[in-house]
Amino acid sequence: MAGIRKAAAIGGGVIGAGWVARLLLNGIDVSIFDPDPEAERKVSEVMKNSRRAYKTMVPGGLPKEGKLTFAKSIEQAVAGADFIQESVPERLDLKHKVLAEIDKHAAVDAIVGSSTSGILPSDMQTAMKHPERLVVGHPYNPVYLLPLVEIVGGKQTSPEAVEKARELYTSIGMKPVVIRKEIEAFVGDRLLEAVWRESLWLIKDDITTVEELDDIIRYSFGIRWAQMGMFQVYRVAGGEAGMRHFIAQFGPCLSWPWTKLMDVPELDEELVDKIANQSDEQAHGLSIRELERIRDDNLVAIMEALSKQNKGKGWGAGALHNDYTKRLSKLAQKPAVSKAATKAVASKPKKKKG
Amino acid sequence: MAGIRKAAAIGGGVIGAGWVARLLLNGIDVSIFDPDPEAERKVSEVMKNSRRAYKTMVPGGLPKEGKLTFAKSIEQAVAGADFIQESVPERLDLKHKVLAEIDKHAAVDAIVGSSTSGILPSDMQTAMKHPERLVVGHPYNPVYLLPLVEIVGGKQTSPEAVEKARELYTSIGMKPVVIRKEIEAFVGDRLLEAVWRESLWLIKDDITTVEELDDIIRYSFGIRWAQMGMFQVYRVAGGEAGMRHFIAQFGPCLSWPWTKLMDVPELDEELVDKIANQSDEQAHGLSIRELERIRDDNLVAIMEALSKQNKGKGWGAGALHNDYTKRLSKLAQKPAVSKAATKAVASKPKKKKG
Repeated sequence: MAGIRKAAAIGGGVIGAGWVARLLLNGIDVSIFDPDPEAERKVSEVMKNSRRAYKTMVPGGLPKEGKLTFAKSIEQAVAGADFIQESVPERLDLKHKVLAEIDKHAAVDAIVGSSTSGILPSDMQTAMKHPERLVVGHPYNPVYLLPLVEIVGGKQTSPEAVEKARELYTSIGMKPVVIRKEIEAFVGDRLLEAVWRESLWLIKDDITTVEELDDIIRYSFGIRWAQMGMFQVYRVAGGEAGMRHFIAQFGPCLSWPWTKLMDVPELDEELVDKIANQSDEQAHGLSIRELERIRDDNLVAIMEALSKQNKGKGWGAGALHNDYTKRLSKLAQKPAVSKAATKAVASKPKKKKG
Repeated sequence: MAGIRKAAAIGGGVIGAGWVARLLLNGIDVSIFDPDPEAERKVSEVMKNSRRAYKTMVPGGLPKEGKLTFAKSIEQAVAGADFIQESVPERLDLKHKVLAEIDKHAAVDAIVGSSTSGILPSDMQTAMKHPERLVVGHPYNPVYLLPLVEIVGGKQTSPEAVEKARELYTSIGMKPVVIRKEIEAFVGDRLLEAVWRESLWLIKDDITTVEELDDIIRYSFGIRWAQMGMFQVYRVAGGEAGMRHFIAQFGPCLSWPWTKLMDVPELDEELVDKIANQSDEQAHGLSIRELERIRDDNLVAIMEALSKQNKGKGWGAGALHNDYTKRLSKLAQKPAVSKAATKAVASKPKKKKG
């Protein structure tokens, strides 16, 4: 399986920094570019959290961390990288500009992944001379812990790039799912947006508060969905009668006047205020940093719990967690792969000066 | 806090049997009525699973199980019960008939909970002479493990009944959330229906298979939602910029043409077949019973993992799990509360013969 020798991260926000953390903790050197003067501090905060979480996951010792370099330009960041992840804000014009710059300076065979939550790769790759190596690699926050990455190719993306991206993401402990057709928002965010829209109505209409709605999720189907998705859950719920019977029963409800999803609630100041205020109350005085650590501890604990299920083989994210932590432990026993590989890359004649 | 002395379950399907299991395992006697000749076998299957799960949860020994009686009529089932849970199929005419029968024979101060997933309590209580004691108590499958119960009162429901129902559900280890306004499908099912509708489109349009969609859920936001709901997750994701900033950023996406939720996909035979076939493949040969046991093991493991978080105090469903298992252990040390209580009820002059 192909691994990443040297990576570049373009954009160091919550998502970009999460990628940096996952890569470094896998022993891979990363060069990052982010024009934000605060980027270095923000990335170091995410690194602190991610190190803390990984130490719990791999108590026997972690691989030697990769080296992090803050580059002064995209050109400098992508020099020598065989994997580049773009995580800049969601504006097509900005994506075009950044991807063109990456494209111009990166090795032609480097894989370029975009963290976009919804923009079509076909729309993004128009600005590239080597559009065939662009894939969407859409992760979930916190990127250093949650395994899913949705891979979406555009019209000009080569099947080889999709396959290579799948290998590279797998090599850093992730669960790639290749989306079969290119659609806006892909799959996960479509599902999330559906819940989000409905939730906004429920809050706006005072059916529930932010905290009550969150409790309704996390004391019921949230726990279910940590281990089986919607269809498997319903298969089991259908009981002996089976999936066909279950759907036939559920089907007619779709025409009931339940959801208000036909309309989009206006996110006016009143609604934003209501949500923000209720969210403040819900936090019960815990800071974002404290909530982040609680979240990370919870996520690790859930994955570890699942790693012991299914007769010790692990189930779902737990089975992957077993593989991943074993791989990290093994990597900790030998000099990080990336060091030797980096040298090999460095001694290779460069396509572009940088 | 008020507890349940003797319970009646009307309907013994997956949900009804789940209620029976939770009640019996809390040491409460239950009388059940279900005209299905297979009911006894089906309930005993659920009992097997639930006993297995509870033994893991409370390794020191469980409370003496309540006594289960199969009644020959609703009248017989509700005799002497101070808590009655109705879980019959989702047809308003049937609910009317069953609730009128319960109402006629139950003690006037008994709380009547309905497991309906979406019918308004106001619409159901019209057939009752004592409509003030009807609440919706909407649980999640498996009822013996998942803590959430959505309590919804109708126009004629008394605030006292809502409060009493909250206490009774709490006393059997559940997390009641009282819905502030009566709406069809309440809150959880509105969110689930939104995901379901969107998922049907994704499958119908071959964007993803049932298994891929499930993986997208359970390797990403499913794990997140086991411990924090959508709003808390977004609060944390917003990072230092805060919730207001996060919503402002997310807001405009709502007008993007992402979801197809305005339309309802036709659940024709072709789509039902596709889903059922893909679901068969996804099961990889595991039977429903095997999947049920895997699911239960996973759910218990997740709740246990969460019970150790937050400096040992537990977090979310994990904090509740701590309280619940402690209560069950304590109950195991003394004769089940329900025994003495049942006698007291039995010796009380009955309102109705039965």
